[in-house]
Amino acid sequence: MIKEFKFSEPMLKSVYSDESEEIKNELSLLQLKLKEQNLPVVVIFEGMSAAGKGRTISETILSLDPRFFKTYSMAPVNKVEKRFPRMQRYWNKIPKKGQISFFDRSWYKDLFYDVDNIDFLFSQEFQNRIKNIETFERQLSDNGYLIIKFYIHITKEEQKKRLKKLSSKKETAWRVNKFDWGANKYYNQMLKFMDGIVEQTNFDFSNWHIIDGVDKLNRNIQVLRTIKDTISKALEEKRKEKPDNDENAEIAMPGFRLIKKPLLEEVNLNRSIDPIVYKEMLNKYQKRLKKIQNEMYIKKIPAIIVFEGWDAGGKGGAIKRVAGSFDARSYAVNPVSSPSPEEASYHYLWRFWDTVPKNGHIAIYDRSWYGRVLVERVENFATNSQWQRAYREINEFEKELNDWGAAVIKFWMQIDTDTQLTRFNERQKSQFKQWKITDEDWRNRKKTPQYEVAANQMIKLTSTDFSPWNIIEANDKLYARIKVLQVLEKSLSNHLKLYKKRNK
Amino acid sequence: MIKEFKFSEPMLKSVYSDESEEIKNELSLLQLKLKEQNLPVVVIFEGMSAAGKGRTISETILSLDPRFFKTYSMAPVNKVEKRFPRMQRYWNKIPKKGQISFFDRSWYKDLFYDVDNIDFLFSQEFQNRIKNIETFERQLSDNGYLIIKFYIHITKEEQKKRLKKLSSKKETAWRVNKFDWGANKYYNQMLKFMDGIVEQTNFDFSNWHIIDGVDKLNRNIQVLRTIKDTISKALEEKRKEKPDNDENAEIAMPGFRLIKKPLLEEVNLNRSIDPIVYKEMLNKYQKRLKKIQNEMYIKKIPAIIVFEGWDAGGKGGAIKRVAGSFDARSYAVNPVSSPSPEEASYHYLWRFWDTVPKNGHIAIYDRSWYGRVLVERVENFATNSQWQRAYREINEFEKELNDWGAAVIKFWMQIDTDTQLTRFNERQKSQFKQWKITDEDWRNRKKTPQYEVAANQMIKLTSTDFSPWNIIEANDKLYARIKVLQVLEKSLSNHLKLYKKRNK
Repeated sequence: MIKEFKFSEPMLKSVYSDESEEIKNELSLLQLKLKEQNLPVVVIFEGMSAAGKGRTISETILSLDPRFFKTYSMAPVNKVEKRFPRMQRYWNKIPKKGQISFFDRSWYKDLFYDVDNIDFLFSQEFQNRIKNIETFERQLSDNGYLIIKFYIHITKEEQKKRLKKLSSKKETAWRVNKFDWGANKYYNQMLKFMDGIVEQTNFDFSNWHIIDGVDKLNRNIQVLRTIKDTISKALEEKRKEKPDNDENAEIAMPGFRLIKKPLLEEVNLNRSIDPIVYKEMLNKYQKRLKKIQNEMYIKKIPAIIVFEGWDAGGKGGAIKRVAGSFDARSYAVNPVSSPSPEEASYHYLWRFWDTVPKNGHIAIYDRSWYGRVLVERVENFATNSQWQRAYREINEFEKELNDWGAAVIKFWMQIDTDTQLTRFNERQKSQFKQWKITDEDWRNRKKTPQYEVAANQMIKLTSTDFSPWNIIEANDKLYARIKVLQVLEKSLSNHLKLYKKRNK
Repeated sequence: MIKEFKFSEPMLKSVYSDESEEIKNELSLLQLKLKEQNLPVVVIFEGMSAAGKGRTISETILSLDPRFFKTYSMAPVNKVEKRFPRMQRYWNKIPKKGQISFFDRSWYKDLFYDVDNIDFLFSQEFQNRIKNIETFERQLSDNGYLIIKFYIHITKEEQKKRLKKLSSKKETAWRVNKFDWGANKYYNQMLKFMDGIVEQTNFDFSNWHIIDGVDKLNRNIQVLRTIKDTISKALEEKRKEKPDNDENAEIAMPGFRLIKKPLLEEVNLNRSIDPIVYKEMLNKYQKRLKKIQNEMYIKKIPAIIVFEGWDAGGKGGAIKRVAGSFDARSYAVNPVSSPSPEEASYHYLWRFWDTVPKNGHIAIYDRSWYGRVLVERVENFATNSQWQRAYREINEFEKELNDWGAAVIKFWMQIDTDTQLTRFNERQKSQFKQWKITDEDWRNRKKTPQYEVAANQMIKLTSTDFSPWNIIEANDKLYARIKVLQVLEKSLSNHLKLYKKRNK
């Protein structure tokens, strides 16, 4: 794609002035419509050193209201960022609805930094990375984000000329380093790499625009025009999220192997444990977990532990015992409730990406991203298409965490409706538990059948082989807590073993 | 204080079991009351290596609901954190109302890391650091935060014994490094430093508790009891924010030199500029600013630029021209509106600390922390005591930014009420400006006299010598924009000169 690009004749200054003026005026109006229609836009600029990415961004934003866009200049991944999943630093920077994020270098540059020889382009690792990028862009696009990707193209000669010019002036010399010169030396090879990457990531929902970077006026006009046209088109189409379709959600789960789990009504809840045995077991498993956690901490292996289940199902009590097993400095508990207006103005996974732990640490979730296919489904806060699509998106999210090295362990705390009623009444009566019960809990209880359908479908469609649901029989609180600790011990041990095997 | 500490006899296990059980039960109830009364609590643990800080935290939190506290283990300041003001990484971690933050090492350890000889304790730099800490803790305390500080004390012999034991076991050996051994070698000197620091930071609103760290049971009981007692007392007193008092806010401004500014009604608004001259001047000053910004970027000098002023005063237009002067990658514009519920559950400065730019970068604020003494005062969202106290708190905030190296430049966009009415009407009529005008603007307009009193007092009390207000005559938009650019150019140039002088 890049290699076949034809450079144009240099543009006349007078032509540029008129045309750019016109486009900029239109852009500044489009920005308001963007706000009105709540359309979020991601614009990325890639290209070799000295291609003029920064200058193009400066020129583009001149016409925009700076309160409604942000620009990010992405340096190579730093030491702190290295401790988080690769895409996290981009998830953190996606725009709110109605706003624009401009990226000067992006996830493509990260990929490019890791290319060290041509064979990499044919490796499995490379394919996985491309897949990651595709997933990221598709998830944004499906959720209503417009993505505009630019590759600014300059010739080897032009690059050399510019690097020389930059180096010759005192105030710009610091911008050029030995890597830039290296890039010029190996220009042809670099171009080959970039071309390969661009070709493989030219998706329907986010295609590339190759821009003439040799003539600056051409470059500016092409970028301005492309942004203007793409946004106009999206606004005309009243581009929103992917529309509802008749497709069955169960079909749309490519690439995941699912583990069969029983239906919730089939679970035998008559399991209990003697309080004396409980104390012993609690002690035993907490000690074992402590030891495992220590090893994971040293080896910098992260874990994500999710608790879902019925109101009064015993999530809080179980979390307390799990947390009590770990070193206080190694974990954080994240209670999740309905998104704040701020949170709701982003992609629904944005707030969860933000709480992913650094490697070696543990994040415990008291409710989670599964709200999308539970409460948001039942209460119609999400459209059919949104919650149906979410099964796959969530599997992809957890896969990414797993690929990064995290154990992703999920618990569903199952109780029957009688037990729930008893506990609700207890809470109502107890001075210290009243805060735990709200009108909402009673309202939810009335919708038990709908929630059960949603929970069963969730367990079916998101019990992947790398992170199946663990259904915990929780009528007896003590039994439930021990079961959680046991499952956790086993899952984390297995995860550690796999890690050791892989790193042998 | 530490040196005179008397260690106790070892505690009997049976006594410990009973007493700790009892205190933990009480603590778990107290936590609920904490939530009810919305009291935020900061608990910090300091002490030498192997004093048992982590273990004490683990023991303490056993009785607590993990959804309502967080623990932070503070490593030495890393490369990314180094680019931000010193206290930022703590402001980021203060708890919400009703929650607890536990710190394993804290701002005291940071101070301690920088002590390299005994003379440091008598230096101006040291006094400034102590002052910073005092300000931080006082600001939290005044705004309703409870602060509990522990120093866990062990003897030189005990430390040596523990380091040996840790080193001898495979699974704990990694916890001991050469710095720990060094600390043991220079124990006496270290103790002297710590003692000096503790003595000077034993404030009324946040005093130290020295804890017997040699006997682990004593240690746990003392910490548990202190936390329980301190929280109980705070809850009984219905500890809220510092109560209203009769003291005049103007008196409570110790340590700041203020620059006299005219009253807003005295400002001559009949200034304007010819559109042709405007274009020329705009071009000229944007070029100059670009150059200055480039130099600041290279030298890693940050800038904070604040815009306040009447609705329709031209903040947006001015910001656009200011932003247009800078490299797109070097600045962010932060539009500030009323705090979200999430934001309101923290200290009011929390959300602003979060947007402080890294060094070399620029943050532009479209409205700011001054909302506390403007809209929150006029609309009674803040109590008298809150907004009166805020003048000093804001001066302290800006002083900290300035000490860190930032230029803090503030603009008040001044227009008269006729001009405002004309612009409101224009906005109402224009298809593309309608979003800029809301019912709230019309309501605010009715309160112009109250806002004028608040603005005059704000300008009077926060025009410090390091960051005075710049009142911009803004009836003529073009004149206002050029004036903003001129003032900015001059202020940033002066800041650069000062920087060079200091670093000669």
